[in-house]
Amino acid sequence: MIIVLKPDHKEEDRRQLVETLRALGLAVHESRGVQRTLVGAIGDEAVLRDLPLESMPGVERVIPILKPYKLVSREFHPADSEVEVGGVAFGPGPVQIIAGPCSIEDRQLLLETAHAIREAGATCLRGGAYKPRTSPYAFQGLGEKGLELLAEAREATGLPVVTELMDPRDTVLVARYADVVQIGARNMQNFRLLKEVGNLTKPILIKRGMSATITEWLMSAEYVAAQGNQRILLCERGIRTFETATRSTLDLSAVPVLKSQTHLPVLVDPSHAAGSWELVEPLSRAAVAAGADGLMIEVHARPEAALCDGNQSLKPERFARLVEAVATVCGAVGRELGGGDR
Amino acid sequence: MIIVLKPDHKEEDRRQLVETLRALGLAVHESRGVQRTLVGAIGDEAVLRDLPLESMPGVERVIPILKPYKLVSREFHPADSEVEVGGVAFGPGPVQIIAGPCSIEDRQLLLETAHAIREAGATCLRGGAYKPRTSPYAFQGLGEKGLELLAEAREATGLPVVTELMDPRDTVLVARYADVVQIGARNMQNFRLLKEVGNLTKPILIKRGMSATITEWLMSAEYVAAQGNQRILLCERGIRTFETATRSTLDLSAVPVLKSQTHLPVLVDPSHAAGSWELVEPLSRAAVAAGADGLMIEVHARPEAALCDGNQSLKPERFARLVEAVATVCGAVGRELGGGDR
Amino acid sequence: MIIVLKPDHKEEDRRQLVETLRALGLAVHESRGVQRTLVGAIGDEAVLRDLPLESMPGVERVIPILKPYKLVSREFHPADSEVEVGGVAFGPGPVQIIAGPCSIEDRQLLLETAHAIREAGATCLRGGAYKPRTSPYAFQGLGEKGLELLAEAREATGLPVVTELMDPRDTVLVARYADVVQIGARNMQNFRLLKEVGNLTKPILIKRGMSATITEWLMSAEYVAAQGNQRILLCERGIRTFETATRSTLDLSAVPVLKSQTHLPVLVDPSHAAGSWELVEPLSRAAVAAGADGLMIEVHARPEAALCDGNQSLKPERFARLVEAVATVCGAVGRELGGGDR
Amino acid sequence: MIIVLKPDHKEEDRRQLVETLRALGLAVHESRGVQRTLVGAIGDEAVLRDLPLESMPGVERVIPILKPYKLVSREFHPADSEVEVGGVAFGPGPVQIIAGPCSIEDRQLLLETAHAIREAGATCLRGGAYKPRTSPYAFQGLGEKGLELLAEAREATGLPVVTELMDPRDTVLVARYADVVQIGARNMQNFRLLKEVGNLTKPILIKRGMSATITEWLMSAEYVAAQGNQRILLCERGIRTFETATRSTLDLSAVPVLKSQTHLPVLVDPSHAAGSWELVEPLSRAAVAAGADGLMIEVHARPEAALCDGNQSLKPERFARLVEAVATVCGAVGRELGGGDR
Repeated sequence: MIIVLKPDHKEEDRRQLVETLRALGLAVHESRGVQRTLVGAIGDEAVLRDLPLESMPGVERVIPILKPYKLVSREFHPADSEVEVGGVAFGPGPVQIIAGPCSIEDRQLLLETAHAIREAGATCLRGGAYKPRTSPYAFQGLGEKGLELLAEAREATGLPVVTELMDPRDTVLVARYADVVQIGARNMQNFRLLKEVGNLTKPILIKRGMSATITEWLMSAEYVAAQGNQRILLCERGIRTFETATRSTLDLSAVPVLKSQTHLPVLVDPSHAAGSWELVEPLSRAAVAAGADGLMIEVHARPEAALCDGNQSLKPERFARLVEAVATVCGAVGRELGGGDR
Repeated sequence: MIIVLKPDHKEEDRRQLVETLRALGLAVHESRGVQRTLVGAIGDEAVLRDLPLESMPGVERVIPILKPYKLVSREFHPADSEVEVGGVAFGPGPVQIIAGPCSIEDRQLLLETAHAIREAGATCLRGGAYKPRTSPYAFQGLGEKGLELLAEAREATGLPVVTELMDPRDTVLVARYADVVQIGARNMQNFRLLKEVGNLTKPILIKRGMSATITEWLMSAEYVAAQGNQRILLCERGIRTFETATRSTLDLSAVPVLKSQTHLPVLVDPSHAAGSWELVEPLSRAAVAAGADGLMIEVHARPEAALCDGNQSLKPERFARLVEAVATVCGAVGRELGGGDR
Repeated sequence: MIIVLKPDHKEEDRRQLVETLRALGLAVHESRGVQRTLVGAIGDEAVLRDLPLESMPGVERVIPILKPYKLVSREFHPADSEVEVGGVAFGPGPVQIIAGPCSIEDRQLLLETAHAIREAGATCLRGGAYKPRTSPYAFQGLGEKGLELLAEAREATGLPVVTELMDPRDTVLVARYADVVQIGARNMQNFRLLKEVGNLTKPILIKRGMSATITEWLMSAEYVAAQGNQRILLCERGIRTFETATRSTLDLSAVPVLKSQTHLPVLVDPSHAAGSWELVEPLSRAAVAAGADGLMIEVHARPEAALCDGNQSLKPERFARLVEAVATVCGAVGRELGGGDR
Repeated sequence: MIIVLKPDHKEEDRRQLVETLRALGLAVHESRGVQRTLVGAIGDEAVLRDLPLESMPGVERVIPILKPYKLVSREFHPADSEVEVGGVAFGPGPVQIIAGPCSIEDRQLLLETAHAIREAGATCLRGGAYKPRTSPYAFQGLGEKGLELLAEAREATGLPVVTELMDPRDTVLVARYADVVQIGARNMQNFRLLKEVGNLTKPILIKRGMSATITEWLMSAEYVAAQGNQRILLCERGIRTFETATRSTLDLSAVPVLKSQTHLPVLVDPSHAAGSWELVEPLSRAAVAAGADGLMIEVHARPEAALCDGNQSLKPERFARLVEAVATVCGAVGRELGGGDR
């Protein structure tokens, strides 16, 4: 950590700062330039992060040098991680596609959708039993009944299932049914929930928060890893910007940035970002071309009757075309699509 | 709701749309212009919000006309609401100042701070027992022990206390100690938590999410109100933008905008927005000048030793000066500061 | 245009509004719902845009129905436009790559770079003679001398050249040398400059402003088209968001959105968006996979000596690898790379 | 400047870097920590800013220590600057109000407005003769005719006038009529225009760009100052964010931040930020309470007939009330309103 002193700092302030740092067990290294004096603190930066050094007299600015996360960093674990889910491996191997309805609404529709996406080439089924809805008057999900239907669809198709957990009180219940437990964008900094899923042995898919920097997102992954669960998938789903032509702005630069910072598999959800089904296929192709290890796509057997996010859901036949298009792009970037041996 | 049809829509699509709307019990009103045909649906817009009308063939765009919230709207309840907390009234009357440390860390420091802020003119004490921290390695709060200390500080000073609830499992516990239950920015769209506090009888302070629009914020308040608890305080604390000179960008325009949209009291927290104590006083003055009904300010007896957000905490003596400055601005905008009779 | 009246509007206000609209030659269509009365104005929306209808008494909100641009819209001109530049066609045919240094600095380096990019497969050469630099103390470009060197590089390689115009006073000069005149991001709403280049017969490449919505960007293109020059290329280069891991956030969703809204060719500049050369190749692949008609890439024979944006410039050998990777992705999305017949 | 080396950098890379720095005449200071080696370059940072150090092998990150601006910094010039305009002093003394129509449209209306604002307490008149409009089909201003009318209004009222310059070719013309030359938000990084006005002797008012950081804004002021013109006024007018309830998000934190970074007077334009006249008064009060040295307010004798921004223009009688309200807030923050001796 580098501490920049104000040009007019008092000698006493500098001495006080250096003593504080030494008392914390840090080595101190000073450098006096023409316009500024810098104080470098060498040692465990973690002990400094909580300290309000910027409020100390004479201090102009504090500059951290190290990343605030460790377990999820590529520096700590250079090789790509592989996260295995019911026979499906997310990571440096094949690109996997998770697909299914936004919310589970009806047994028949879910089974129909599940069979259709499996047929088309998806290797995991998604579906929400608990739905975070902006309005209290909107459909909130079927709850446990939805989880049961999801399990039935897994039985019927053999596809592992991904579903969202919103409340720490539902952790055991959701984990009983889910193969992957999803933390939604709105809960990316629900730290109590992150700690809960950190105690599970199931893989955790963490969506990026709408206003989360990549570093904050990795810190949320670190919360899970620090509890002992390192089976983590990251899923970019768009950030909030001033642009209103799309629901969110899909940040595909995050894919190669994450690849350099972390060993965790990186997925992209173009459906929520776009908010409109017409954009899903081009953005899916782009995500894979940027290096994504997987996709998460909303598919609904009858989007016009969907109780949630129907505007961005693909019909099964369009999804089948998307999978073909994505498979071709996979080939162009030296990868293959998962589920090819089916 | 207005549905704009594509210029090349099929007659069949239009007919299908109109039938769908009528089947939902809505009156339909069509208007054919030179370049676009519009279909107006008159009736309860709520039944339409969940419907993916934009994915229907021939539809270009769907424009809602009504606000999505009701109970918290000024249209529904034209007069300003007053929320009473342990003898302190938030609302159209005096401007109230909530102050205290970011986190409760130490009995002695808390009591010292509580006495100092009371002396200076604050009418409520804040302090976090559960802290949402970006890093899993940072101080996470004292938990129930912190709540006990907060209650002791209330005893000692007579100030009602505000503290954050992060986990639905702590609802009963937190509500036992708190006079106002705070929902933090990161939990503004933690809908399960909102429902929980909607069942309490205590007032709820909802901080604005970092990437929440004013409408989304009011929808979160509507979640609480829809459960039956209408004792709600809103607190602006800055939104996330590209500017890095401050931690967040305090959106003071939100104050008059909220005043026109809702009857709920509006507070401002300049400490978290600024991230630096030097900015807190000018922003406090500005907030009151913009029409805020209250302030929430971080004060710490020894900021340089704070375990959380020390950079933005004021020392008691600076806080006392802030209160004086704010009192003068209150006078200039025709209001007075709470606690004047002490 | 739909005008929503306030629930408590006066009958007199409504009458006044209707008369104002009729006096402007518009047909008026009223619709009274339970909670709101709507007034629809049918006819030329352009006459209404400048009118401050929202400040009229009784008016709650004004909702435009039509897009504010015309000549550049796909509705007006359904087929993809092709813009031909010195034998290179931008549009629905082959994907073209523009490459070269950020700024022209040295004759030898420019010629070396130009030959190298041509060899690798680029079909246009870029290079700035006038540079918009944040700091007045930074290198500002060689001016006319740079234009001469650019022309020499065109002679030597046969590649048409793209260069930026920053000042209306340089229009004739720049147009004498350039094959494509570039309007930079910072000048996207320099309307006087847009009018100037609207009077040229040369193609104009308009970069997206850092905080421009897609609609505003198309309005800037409309400025050029309205003057008579419809040979326009659009180039996405990232928008400003809260994320700091990249210099800007490349908005690849803009590619398919533009494709649906306009007939103009769409290019992507991943170099400026990323700010770091490591990200340029994955983002180039993604841009083409999303449907871009071309790329604009910074290449410098010696990035470590570049006077401008060296961090994001590729060396020729890495650029050659990028072109190969992009060619493969082109194939995967059913397109080919330009210059194949060389 | 601090250069952080990658954990796996080669010894050769470090040596190369140190040599490069020394060759530039900088002193070099190295510090080896457990996890990172830092190289500090002491001397003139300006020589380093243009160098692409981040693209050098072995370099992880480059951290500038000094601010990139000098002449406009408070460090360089600790006392508040005062900028005098036709007898009106902007700076640490009285708070000045600039008012007038968005665009000059009609002689009678302008004169009427000018007299009314003078009567109410404004000390400068604003009015646009050249208007930057998003649409090429919108009213673009009266040009020189507008400047003549503005001069006539100055004659009639004695108020100095502020008007926008959009094109370097109009510099002499605009400067002949204007007392203050305004650089609009869209031209804040039109560096050629900044250089032009840097050669004038008239004061320059620089509005903040919609996506400009405070540092970038100060760099634009530095452009003007570096040419020799240090009579500069800064005017905050809102930044672009995701919030759509207001046209832009007024960043009032910028006021105290600027006060600490620069000696230049700071004004606030709440009209353009808000986009709605109802918000102008509370935001004006807040701006002054935050420490602004002046306000810029849109006033129109007949907003409902305005050709530009009528929605956000105040009628003269409402403006008069605003001035009274602002005067009271000035008093509360220990300042007075300009023009008091009239």
